[in-house]
Amino acid sequence: MTVRLRDVTLRDGLQDERPISTEDKLALLTHLLAAGVSDLELSSFARADRVPAMADAEQFCSAVVAMDVPAVLWGLVLNLRGAQRAISAGMRHLEFVVSVSESHNYENVRRTVADSMAELARIIELVTDVDGVVDITFATAFGCPFQGPVAPEAVLKVAEQAMALGLRRFTLADTIGTAMPNEVTGLVTAIARLAEPEELGIHLHDTRGLAIANALAGIEAGADRVDGALGGLGGCPFAPGASGNLPLEDLVHALEGMGLHTGIDLDELLGAARFACARLGRASTSHVGVAGPRFAHLAAVS
Amino acid sequence: MTVRLRDVTLRDGLQDERPISTEDKLALLTHLLAAGVSDLELSSFARADRVPAMADAEQFCSAVVAMDVPAVLWGLVLNLRGAQRAISAGMRHLEFVVSVSESHNYENVRRTVADSMAELARIIELVTDVDGVVDITFATAFGCPFQGPVAPEAVLKVAEQAMALGLRRFTLADTIGTAMPNEVTGLVTAIARLAEPEELGIHLHDTRGLAIANALAGIEAGADRVDGALGGLGGCPFAPGASGNLPLEDLVHALEGMGLHTGIDLDELLGAARFACARLGRASTSHVGVAGPRFAHLAAVS
Repeated sequence: MTVRLRDVTLRDGLQDERPISTEDKLALLTHLLAAGVSDLELSSFARADRVPAMADAEQFCSAVVAMDVPAVLWGLVLNLRGAQRAISAGMRHLEFVVSVSESHNYENVRRTVADSMAELARIIELVTDVDGVVDITFATAFGCPFQGPVAPEAVLKVAEQAMALGLRRFTLADTIGTAMPNEVTGLVTAIARLAEPEELGIHLHDTRGLAIANALAGIEAGADRVDGALGGLGGCPFAPGASGNLPLEDLVHALEGMGLHTGIDLDELLGAARFACARLGRASTSHVGVAGPRFAHLAAVS
Repeated sequence: MTVRLRDVTLRDGLQDERPISTEDKLALLTHLLAAGVSDLELSSFARADRVPAMADAEQFCSAVVAMDVPAVLWGLVLNLRGAQRAISAGMRHLEFVVSVSESHNYENVRRTVADSMAELARIIELVTDVDGVVDITFATAFGCPFQGPVAPEAVLKVAEQAMALGLRRFTLADTIGTAMPNEVTGLVTAIARLAEPEELGIHLHDTRGLAIANALAGIEAGADRVDGALGGLGGCPFAPGASGNLPLEDLVHALEGMGLHTGIDLDELLGAARFACARLGRASTSHVGVAGPRFAHLAAVS
């Protein structure tokens, strides 16, 4: 069985960091492609004043599109303006983010959920015109920093609205790392039953050490894709270790160790993670990055 | 459903550290009991020159036995001499450790596995005379630092020998943190089928970030007990972050969050972990210890 993994280092891993150069991003991308990563979140078309690390979204994305790399390239958008920018840069896979909880959506995009969904309808028109695809990412699908727990019914309600707009690609995001494995199982199952998705992804943060367990629960329940970032990068830089992404190399190590296939070369990926962490001056929170793959020391001495 | 958790901080968490005083161990024990921990590994009756941090095993254990605490108290023994010492100190729950892999057993106790099992027979006689119980812990049950992967058949073979000696309490130890969730499922299932155990425990290290996922897999497959240590303490101090125990507070947080019962108060346990890490001067590797329980910040402001 093959599991699709999407690297989100270049967007979620970098967005809260001191900006690195477009050249460094291209070098990091080269590392990721060399490791066999074939699904990538490239950038966020947010406002440069709000997310300075993504200010080069057009420049970086159009450079990558011109390279014609063997990978699916995603651009994150929050509104129509972002979608226009992404399409102009040549992007054809757009992920539209809406928070299921009103309070987080307002904090994130200064809109009600209903207004975000109205914006989505206009984005879909735009993307359809260029034969692109739209994924809808449900932020705070498992919990909100302002409201607390989020009921699965709330996610399903927004999912139904997205379905009414013709969408069949969904990503469930555990934005603040509160999901429990049984909750992931429940929500993945419920969405799969409701929507028969073309693609159902899960986006996990390791805030409370459950990202790998949640990933395995989601895959077992039928998720098609799991997101991860090199070295567990991402999250708030003012709460070290508290809210990084699921470390992609730990996930590859686990899945391959369980006999599943990812198409990713772990050694190359560990090299990519070392490069990314060095460029950012951040310590890796990946266990495998620190300890090495299991039994690797035996191969080294024999 | 209730899951029995055993705290191993006082043995596995401390054994490779600079020794702390018996008084500090008693204070730590008080914290653990206040949190509701009712199953504890107290000490190892190893040679004081080999494990200086456990040199006060008799003094500490007999003090705790005299307190008549509402908890099951385990003493680790590697040989007959250790068992004699444990019983003299008043201990009645002994865990005998044998490594499934010959090379690790020799490194650990300078004996073949067959010689260890012969020693176990004599220990069982001794413990039976005082109406005590013996658990056999299979070290390197999922992997050996010298031999690499360990086949389930090798574990089952030693388990059969233990059964022939009348034992029905087993602990599967992922000594170097190489186990994968499907391997835990497989071995727990196989032992449960073979032995109909009175108690089947799993002892996990978080070396490659899989301890929680392995714990959940083991519980689902029928394990009765899971070991953990405060703050993820334990493992080799010369490989920071590389080989600590499963952080007990992360496990409590996960299980209670999934609706299972542990009988342990998480806030008290987090306090115990802070105490333990401060006494040792070590950083916690617990995610929940760093980030706090999910949604706890909301309770704090409301």
